[in-house]
Amino acid sequence: MEVPILKFTPNPQSRRAFLRGSAATMAGIVTAQAASGTQADPLITEVQDWASVTGDGVDATPYGLPIKFESDVVRRSVPWLTASPISSINFTPIHALDGTITPQGCAFERHHSGAIELSKSDYRLMVNGLVDQPLVFSYADLERLPRENHVYFCECAANTGMEWAGAQLNGVQFTHGMIHNMEYTGVSLRSVLQEAGLAAAGDLQDKWVYVEGADASSNGRSIPMEKALDDVLVAFKANGEALRKEHGYPVRVVVPGWEGNMWVKWLRRIEVMDGPVESREETSKYTDVLEDGTARKWTWVMDAKSVITSPSPQAPIQHGPGALVITGLAWSGHGSIKRVDISKDGGRNWETARLSNHESNKALARFYLEMDWQGEEMLLQARAMDETGYVQPSKQQLRELRGENSVYHNNCIQTWHVKPTGEVENVEVS
Amino acid sequence: MEVPILKFTPNPQSRRAFLRGSAATMAGIVTAQAASGTQADPLITEVQDWASVTGDGVDATPYGLPIKFESDVVRRSVPWLTASPISSINFTPIHALDGTITPQGCAFERHHSGAIELSKSDYRLMVNGLVDQPLVFSYADLERLPRENHVYFCECAANTGMEWAGAQLNGVQFTHGMIHNMEYTGVSLRSVLQEAGLAAAGDLQDKWVYVEGADASSNGRSIPMEKALDDVLVAFKANGEALRKEHGYPVRVVVPGWEGNMWVKWLRRIEVMDGPVESREETSKYTDVLEDGTARKWTWVMDAKSVITSPSPQAPIQHGPGALVITGLAWSGHGSIKRVDISKDGGRNWETARLSNHESNKALARFYLEMDWQGEEMLLQARAMDETGYVQPSKQQLRELRGENSVYHNNCIQTWHVKPTGEVENVEVS
Repeated sequence: MEVPILKFTPNPQSRRAFLRGSAATMAGIVTAQAASGTQADPLITEVQDWASVTGDGVDATPYGLPIKFESDVVRRSVPWLTASPISSINFTPIHALDGTITPQGCAFERHHSGAIELSKSDYRLMVNGLVDQPLVFSYADLERLPRENHVYFCECAANTGMEWAGAQLNGVQFTHGMIHNMEYTGVSLRSVLQEAGLAAAGDLQDKWVYVEGADASSNGRSIPMEKALDDVLVAFKANGEALRKEHGYPVRVVVPGWEGNMWVKWLRRIEVMDGPVESREETSKYTDVLEDGTARKWTWVMDAKSVITSPSPQAPIQHGPGALVITGLAWSGHGSIKRVDISKDGGRNWETARLSNHESNKALARFYLEMDWQGEEMLLQARAMDETGYVQPSKQQLRELRGENSVYHNNCIQTWHVKPTGEVENVEVS
Repeated sequence: MEVPILKFTPNPQSRRAFLRGSAATMAGIVTAQAASGTQADPLITEVQDWASVTGDGVDATPYGLPIKFESDVVRRSVPWLTASPISSINFTPIHALDGTITPQGCAFERHHSGAIELSKSDYRLMVNGLVDQPLVFSYADLERLPRENHVYFCECAANTGMEWAGAQLNGVQFTHGMIHNMEYTGVSLRSVLQEAGLAAAGDLQDKWVYVEGADASSNGRSIPMEKALDDVLVAFKANGEALRKEHGYPVRVVVPGWEGNMWVKWLRRIEVMDGPVESREETSKYTDVLEDGTARKWTWVMDAKSVITSPSPQAPIQHGPGALVITGLAWSGHGSIKRVDISKDGGRNWETARLSNHESNKALARFYLEMDWQGEEMLLQARAMDETGYVQPSKQQLRELRGENSVYHNNCIQTWHVKPTGEVENVEVS
């Protein structure tokens, strides 16, 4: 079969073409240099060679890894942010991902006293407190209860927390990467509690469930009974396979839509109580200090939020003028994302983006907006709306309500300054 | 806080209990030995220790891997099945997974001449043949077209092929593991073809699209234009991240619901043609030889199918009598799975399983059936029904239609013989 050397040239006759239909002649191939004034050769003439020799065998074991060219697409930590590697945060490289699922190998995780090693055969889960019969479950016991699968996002309350005081230099991996989105498999916390029996607890309206991990920090958190009996999972798999060690192997709590700190890893104990424990993690931490020095507490739900992942500081426009795909993520702890709007001028004008997945109940939604970019400066923003009608606020609106003392629950609109070179900078607009 | 030593004992008062409600006293903890006559200590009295020292720091890089305890949950090949590691198959460990997503690191893949290494910067995709303007796309060009995300299953036509002649000794990883289910991100083949323009092709009804890989095998396949313009993707990401090398990095074809051999990896060229190529991969291979020696061809769609993944030969019942969760996977190349029935007596009586995900358009569905197992022998079967009303056939029905010469397209009902010990064997029922 003849394989001619072809040139990638536009055909102005076709009205269906997208790249070719762009205002830039030969939009698909003009390079970034052209945008900055240097005319590059616009013609790609090479054809992909066939391999003339066979490739590598594929080793079935050990577990497969990304190709070497993707070695930059990894979780990253911020050394100055946390005191020690045993109390640290690993950020998802959301600037380099697409779709909605986060692979476990590069998924956000936070640990307070290191990741502990716990085997399934050693694992025990105690259920005690105001229950009819205290119980200890083995891992095998948990697998005998009815299982569920749900895709949920897990976002740290501190995600975007460094943006309260002003735009930082870092890219979206660090401003918004304390989040992951995985398909969790587990049993309902409701079914675990029902095994122990809740008749002894009396009126469930005012009861709480305390969950604690087996790591040295314990990271204990109080969950109101209404939520505990609603959609909380005692989970043992993520994206089909066992939880990774750093994600709480073998068992963690999944608290859909609520702040990640409550998703206790290495789950050790569940206690039904008359009230909340008011633990360290829900008093001195994970509360929101307001302008007057008082603090909001029990701020569990992660409000609707969105961010453009590309273009962004770590994902600049490298292909020059013409067809450009703007994409990003949106999510809400209150349910589904109904709409995402995008502004190119810092919030003056808005247009509605395309949502690629219409099922996003407490899970990430992916949005896209295709545009013809002619090298103009842009102040790019995304604004999410969820099924409750809530609209993601601007940074100004959020500061007016909460001041600048907070670390947590910053869900404000983010602004990226796109420059004629295609470079992107994190900025604030007034 | 006091942490008493508790005993896992049943509370007969509660009617809500599931494990406790089972006919077996202390069902949740009687061990497998009990089922075979040896009474084990039924009481678990240990409480999970708290870690008294901090755990390990979590290295952000390199890419995270499963914990050492899960080292058996890996893809596996069958050395005698294929001639060489450069033409081989890696089977998904579906017996050990749950939910619906397959992690790329253990996802089924088949390669015909090794996995080749192709960088994004070197990558070129030619579109030629009956198009208005032949084009060569760079990787960056592809990213400028509108993107989509969809979860789809990819099943090898030869999956379950070793079962035509009779039940093999291997477990479900080998009988049904030539399948994966990932969230693919890419651009529609339609949009790529429209870039080149299809006016020159004339009447599209009788046109075909030939896709070929850059590996030495090329693995070229012909796709009818109707499918090419429907839902085929030119994909570059799976489960959010770049395709792994062995999955076709940087670009592969995704042909939803159709046999995996057409999902050409390391995609090099797309040619619009007047007819099919009748390549090796669609004549001497991937056709179904019938009893009379003639062959069915163009058997692209993977018909509705299901299998119980646990219990199964590699996932025996180890916890003894009482509450048992039966689970498995179902899928159809024609659309969504509407129902899965389970038989415990080799197909005489059926009960309907619970589907955990109701969106399964050309994607895996996960089903569960909870039961009280008292150590009785069972002949476990699952039977899928899809949105077209098609019902998965028995092995006898399929053999009557197709004989036993086929390698491909075996979607018959699978039978697992569950023994009183909890061990499971692959058998046939007449």
